[in-house]
Amino acid sequence: MLAHRLIERKRDGGRIEAGEWRALAHAYAAGHVPDYQMAALLMAAFLRGLDRTETAALMDAMLGSGSRLDLSHLAAARIDKHSTGGVGDKVSLVLAPLVASLGVAVPMMSGRGLGHTGGTLDKLESIPGFRTNLSLAEAKTQVEALGCALIGQTAEIAPADRKMYALRDATATVESVPLIAASIMSKKLAEGLTGLVLDVKRGSGAFLPELERGLELARTMIELGEDRGCPVVALITAMDRPLGRACGNALEVEESIAALKGEGPPDLMEVTYALGAEMLMLAGVSSTRDAARRAMEVSISSGRAAEKFREIIEAQGGNPSVVDDPAVLPQAKAVELFAAPRRGIVAAVEPKAIGRGIIALGGGRNTMEDVVDPSVGFVITARPGDWVEAGEPLATIFARDRAGIDAGRQALQQAIRLADEADPPLPLISHRVTSAGVERYDTDAA
Amino acid sequence: MLAHRLIERKRDGGRIEAGEWRALAHAYAAGHVPDYQMAALLMAAFLRGLDRTETAALMDAMLGSGSRLDLSHLAAARIDKHSTGGVGDKVSLVLAPLVASLGVAVPMMSGRGLGHTGGTLDKLESIPGFRTNLSLAEAKTQVEALGCALIGQTAEIAPADRKMYALRDATATVESVPLIAASIMSKKLAEGLTGLVLDVKRGSGAFLPELERGLELARTMIELGEDRGCPVVALITAMDRPLGRACGNALEVEESIAALKGEGPPDLMEVTYALGAEMLMLAGVSSTRDAARRAMEVSISSGRAAEKFREIIEAQGGNPSVVDDPAVLPQAKAVELFAAPRRGIVAAVEPKAIGRGIIALGGGRNTMEDVVDPSVGFVITARPGDWVEAGEPLATIFARDRAGIDAGRQALQQAIRLADEADPPLPLISHRVTSAGVERYDTDAA
Repeated sequence: MLAHRLIERKRDGGRIEAGEWRALAHAYAAGHVPDYQMAALLMAAFLRGLDRTETAALMDAMLGSGSRLDLSHLAAARIDKHSTGGVGDKVSLVLAPLVASLGVAVPMMSGRGLGHTGGTLDKLESIPGFRTNLSLAEAKTQVEALGCALIGQTAEIAPADRKMYALRDATATVESVPLIAASIMSKKLAEGLTGLVLDVKRGSGAFLPELERGLELARTMIELGEDRGCPVVALITAMDRPLGRACGNALEVEESIAALKGEGPPDLMEVTYALGAEMLMLAGVSSTRDAARRAMEVSISSGRAAEKFREIIEAQGGNPSVVDDPAVLPQAKAVELFAAPRRGIVAAVEPKAIGRGIIALGGGRNTMEDVVDPSVGFVITARPGDWVEAGEPLATIFARDRAGIDAGRQALQQAIRLADEADPPLPLISHRVTSAGVERYDTDAA
Repeated sequence: MLAHRLIERKRDGGRIEAGEWRALAHAYAAGHVPDYQMAALLMAAFLRGLDRTETAALMDAMLGSGSRLDLSHLAAARIDKHSTGGVGDKVSLVLAPLVASLGVAVPMMSGRGLGHTGGTLDKLESIPGFRTNLSLAEAKTQVEALGCALIGQTAEIAPADRKMYALRDATATVESVPLIAASIMSKKLAEGLTGLVLDVKRGSGAFLPELERGLELARTMIELGEDRGCPVVALITAMDRPLGRACGNALEVEESIAALKGEGPPDLMEVTYALGAEMLMLAGVSSTRDAARRAMEVSISSGRAAEKFREIIEAQGGNPSVVDDPAVLPQAKAVELFAAPRRGIVAAVEPKAIGRGIIALGGGRNTMEDVVDPSVGFVITARPGDWVEAGEPLATIFARDRAGIDAGRQALQQAIRLADEADPPLPLISHRVTSAGVERYDTDAA
């Protein structure tokens, strides 16, 4: 009867108390509350909202439904980065080893791709042998030894959230700021962090396209973190076009390794350095953005960053020679250039169309049961604002076969819009949000 | 993917089209849409509302998910009565045989008790042998032969509604005017009616206590019926106290039989005559309320009404001698009087507390799986406004044993409030609603 009473109260705009959220999360994780009752409650919460206290209580309840990574004995600061997701967003793959190479512990828990956005776990698993399903004990040992582990949400962590997230996906209750914030923060706090950096995407390819909603999410997560002693800083970054050039699992690993060697595309490096600087400052390793950036550049140029990635890959069962030779990665059977059908300005490279193109190629998921082909995808060299001539190559399609090439071509035709004039794209990094408030991000003020 | 899209649209305040409701009801009845998706949709519909067109489309979709009772070959008008439910509301048991005895076909489909309200099927089944689970074919034959059948919602009728109603009950999405109206009307239209009379209860023991919400429900159902060629008239009646004296399944059958013999309590008779008059006028049997009432009084005094009930009981496998001898009904083992603990005015007889008392005695249901003991309940002789002396009997408790008597006593202590002064109870019948509008019900204008 508990669930019925809580649904009724939330439906009527009332508030659910901490003890009630706890009992509910516990009962739901244990299978004592049926999915249909939870679905009704989630829709009521979606439409009626949760206030700050409730959001924190829901987060605590989900966190408390499982175990945590206890890293409190480590001397090092423990910092993670979380992105709200996008297309071509391989920042985690570069950032985790880079920041870990500078003495920060990075216990990074990531997700799989669903819908048009990619997922870090899928990308990592394109490295032959790479295991992301470490137990909490394994992850702990690895963070102690290497300063970094790249894992998925284990069954031990926030099981109520895990089950609830799948249900939200099926019941159109995903895009709610308090529900998103509580879900993310329950997992992040389970990592035992001393600080968290958020990459909140905005623009047509983002989960919450509107700046205002992104800021609201950032503020909510900052409050939740601060309340639990985990400082949070958020950057608002552009997802009106893919980040970097590579879009597709193995292709993104290849680009990430290039980035760790100092050969990444400028936009990817810019976002990586900006987020990395926040991580290093939260960790107390660097005191200014400028100093942090220099430290990261040195780690890359000295080979330490790439070396750290090699160690992580090896520790998680992957083939470490991928760091030297990308041919170790699964290779697409069919590769073709995509040329500009006309001359003009690149007015848009639509992330959603690219993401759907990857699904069409077999490299993404419509449902969680879909198996992903890691080899397929796009490398898109055209950037919004570029002037191109007819016939000039804009992208390369990586597919399984002829049919894949055709599907990829179709996707690119939809995604890459050429015009005579074009609005400027969104600034790559536009805002920085902390507990003190929102400020415009000044890219020159390194 | 259909369900997800529709949930999303309703969540955002959009409208679901007729073809979509049809596809959804069909898929849901067939088990192709999971309960959790339907629960999310129902909560979104509860909070966002359904406009008139959508409500009609949902009703049609549920109606179309099953079969109908085809009585179009009958010369007689086919009229049913539906009550929004209450405590002690045994009007159907009196009204169906009474109106059928006057040449109107009454194909009456009723429900079971749930929560604090009783259900006609449970009451009928306290008559030894009485079968309420007739097939549509059996019901049709019986209506042809006797002018009346008293049945439950068969699996053939509106299966989508049947499944959806159980889900709404579990997910706190019951009290929505469009959902209630579409649900009731889908079943009523499946009876092949030429007219319908609604008894919309108001007051603390009603499903929708507020007059305004009751009027809104009446108006919605009137519109739905008129749109489909089934005229609907509604009376608003009081449920701030139980109707009649008997509350409990077998006790209510006994009181109903007394009423059919002209010995019913005045309030029960008043409501029965008022609703019966609307049925007879809709049927074209009587042209005025006054004429209708006289016809009903004659049917009762001549014994025809009681005789019709006997025929129905016999046709449905029940022991017809119950009409002459109430001792045929299951008898409670423990019977005790409940006396006034002080002198004063009866300020309230709370239907909800009485209903919960019946559940505590074993005579009602908390969940649809509960088995009901037909013998238990209360006969409450105290009426709101009565002046009573300390020690004067207010009610009789009928229970299984000593523990039941104690539970019943506790319920009556909560339900019957004695005070030095009291507000007058609600008027027994306050409004009459038709497609022409709402009018105050003038009890003298017979």
